[in-house]
Amino acid sequence: MIVIDGFTPIDGGVCAAGGFTAAGINANIKGNSKKNDLAIIYCVKPCKAQALYTQNKVKGAPILVTKKHLADGLAQAVVVNSGNANTCNENGMEIAEKMCELTANALKIKKEDVIVASTGVIGQPLSIKPFEENIPMLAGFLNEFGSDDVCQAIMTTDTRKKEFAVQFKIGEKTCHIGGISKGSGMINPKMATMLCFITTDVVISNEMLDKALRMVNNDTFNCITVDNDTSTNDMVSIMSSGIAGNKEITEDDENFNTFCDGLSVVMINLARETARDGEGATKLIECVVKNADSEEKAKIIAKSVVSSNLLKAAFFAADANWGRISCAIGNADAEFDFNKVSVELASGGKIIKVCKNGKGVPFSEEEAHLLLQGDEITVFVDLNESENCCGVAWGCDLTYDYVKINAEYRS
Amino acid sequence: MIVIDGFTPIDGGVCAAGGFTAAGINANIKGNSKKNDLAIIYCVKPCKAQALYTQNKVKGAPILVTKKHLADGLAQAVVVNSGNANTCNENGMEIAEKMCELTANALKIKKEDVIVASTGVIGQPLSIKPFEENIPMLAGFLNEFGSDDVCQAIMTTDTRKKEFAVQFKIGEKTCHIGGISKGSGMINPKMATMLCFITTDVVISNEMLDKALRMVNNDTFNCITVDNDTSTNDMVSIMSSGIAGNKEITEDDENFNTFCDGLSVVMINLARETARDGEGATKLIECVVKNADSEEKAKIIAKSVVSSNLLKAAFFAADANWGRISCAIGNADAEFDFNKVSVELASGGKIIKVCKNGKGVPFSEEEAHLLLQGDEITVFVDLNESENCCGVAWGCDLTYDYVKINAEYRS
Repeated sequence: MIVIDGFTPIDGGVCAAGGFTAAGINANIKGNSKKNDLAIIYCVKPCKAQALYTQNKVKGAPILVTKKHLADGLAQAVVVNSGNANTCNENGMEIAEKMCELTANALKIKKEDVIVASTGVIGQPLSIKPFEENIPMLAGFLNEFGSDDVCQAIMTTDTRKKEFAVQFKIGEKTCHIGGISKGSGMINPKMATMLCFITTDVVISNEMLDKALRMVNNDTFNCITVDNDTSTNDMVSIMSSGIAGNKEITEDDENFNTFCDGLSVVMINLARETARDGEGATKLIECVVKNADSEEKAKIIAKSVVSSNLLKAAFFAADANWGRISCAIGNADAEFDFNKVSVELASGGKIIKVCKNGKGVPFSEEEAHLLLQGDEITVFVDLNESENCCGVAWGCDLTYDYVKINAEYRS
Repeated sequence: MIVIDGFTPIDGGVCAAGGFTAAGINANIKGNSKKNDLAIIYCVKPCKAQALYTQNKVKGAPILVTKKHLADGLAQAVVVNSGNANTCNENGMEIAEKMCELTANALKIKKEDVIVASTGVIGQPLSIKPFEENIPMLAGFLNEFGSDDVCQAIMTTDTRKKEFAVQFKIGEKTCHIGGISKGSGMINPKMATMLCFITTDVVISNEMLDKALRMVNNDTFNCITVDNDTSTNDMVSIMSSGIAGNKEITEDDENFNTFCDGLSVVMINLARETARDGEGATKLIECVVKNADSEEKAKIIAKSVVSSNLLKAAFFAADANWGRISCAIGNADAEFDFNKVSVELASGGKIIKVCKNGKGVPFSEEEAHLLLQGDEITVFVDLNESENCCGVAWGCDLTYDYVKINAEYRS
């Protein structure tokens, strides 16, 4: 867990911020699952709201509807289902609109103030029936301890719930940011991840909310990958109730920085957990590229390293086959002098140098094998270009279970 | 096998063209293998020669040495080893130079006329000893039936030899082009594949030889992928002995087109076999994108489809989860209207439509499952943009054995 002084991790997830309640139930959307698959997040008052969406050119119907609904920067509820992505369906737009309408009617709010999201198999017929039968009832279940139930409702092949919330101060006011997210396959977010819902009670203008979300997302969800496949349904949304009562954040000042720090802590922890819980994964792989002459370059190289199938398979076997790291570095779309590059492997407080000035250095294979059995591995890549710029990316290992899960996903 | 009228497939591989002999032996380079791991290809006279190299920014020492040696467009021999990539080694350049020198001395040719290549683990120490002990003897084994032995010597995790040769006419002269190649992991060639050696007896200028190689490579090896990882040691070289005696090809005329057709037949068959024999693969996946408004775009989309881990795992299980095709199409770096796109799956003469105008169409899952059990699957993607442009890419499925091979590769 990543923590920053002054930002206290708290329980409550997406209900940690003032004004929010949530609920999740099983609506039998896929037809054969007993787990929650339908959820609502609700705020007592209309919120300023922003979202980022997938860059995949094929976009799910819920993405298109949410984009339309958020054009005015306002939202009051989220409705989300798993078990079907409502993408490439003949009646996709109709169903996404109807989900919003049913939710709005049950909550007595405007349907244009509803964010809609779906995750699951693409191109499978979806009926409106489970939504008609369950949304009215679900609205009655809303409560401030509901975050867990929503987490479960958005999971597909995820094995763990991902929620994180922090409490912090802006001036004298106590503020909160909380979020939940889901992975765990088709994960290579570009502008947003599979699904992530963030709530806050901080008073902040829509312009600054959008700026904070873009900035933090770029360093968190956009830096993870499970399988290099950007989903059609990626979305991260943020809703701000303004209930904390701080002086409204309208410019790039100290309070805005505080808000961004809080948002970073929430999103970085959700992003790391999403990578760690990649399909079939047994470990989190982190790559830190340092001493680069630009942050952008450092991030591109870090992402290339955690994207390599070959490295991911080697790390599954705790094999220090670092040549695959050099291959991945060389494949990054960036310019650098490999003759200056050094590479280290780290886990559990131990660190082993495997490459210096672009050439292998002697190391104990046994010790490296032991180190790589850790469940969190960091690859340090030092470009030795300058003192300043650094970039981080996160991924996971490639295992038999990844193949198993994806060979059996629909059955 | 892809054939074209007028180009007769023949035996002989890299020795099919006039003037070439070859030999391969076990030089115990890796220290624990009984298979061939060292080979020489030789021509009785100096050849016009060209090569294309990896675009990975980390390049193996043999790549750098070969580039230098081919600056004058001349070569007379190839020396190649497997078991060690001679990349990221402290003494890498020294060893690559020495391999050329030993070969030149044994063959009584200039060391600058030797092409050198290595494949295997990156960043492992390599001794000059096995080369000193074996190259002089190996030179004595050269013979015109040696192509098979060379094929074996360049294999790493490959399960099958890849060689192909054709005979054809230019004017009244009988001409030949033959080649061998190896895969089978770290395969996502950019400008060249892992290793491919082509020989011909056609009389052709260096300029046109280079042009033909670039053009054909772009439609063949650059269109395959096994794991999206471009190797540090990719190289495809072509040597022309000129022994066929045709009028020299010096411009973009009919004879040049004939030569390119012959080269295409050889390289397309080697490329397809390299994809089919990807690490752990059980089937060849071909994606044909048609009716695009540019060839470039069609190729980019086809490559994106065969690169998707998720689709590759689904096809391993013969699961017609075509939503993953739409996701991969959407992730391609290209502009198109998905609402016009249709997708079909084909194998063994059967064809099933799964998507029309960007939306799923009903099909029999059972029949699709049966179809996908074939060992050669074609995905047809129709962009419906125009009548003209088409692009093809080849890959393979993602299996338990891919993970197994790459988790155990060094042991």
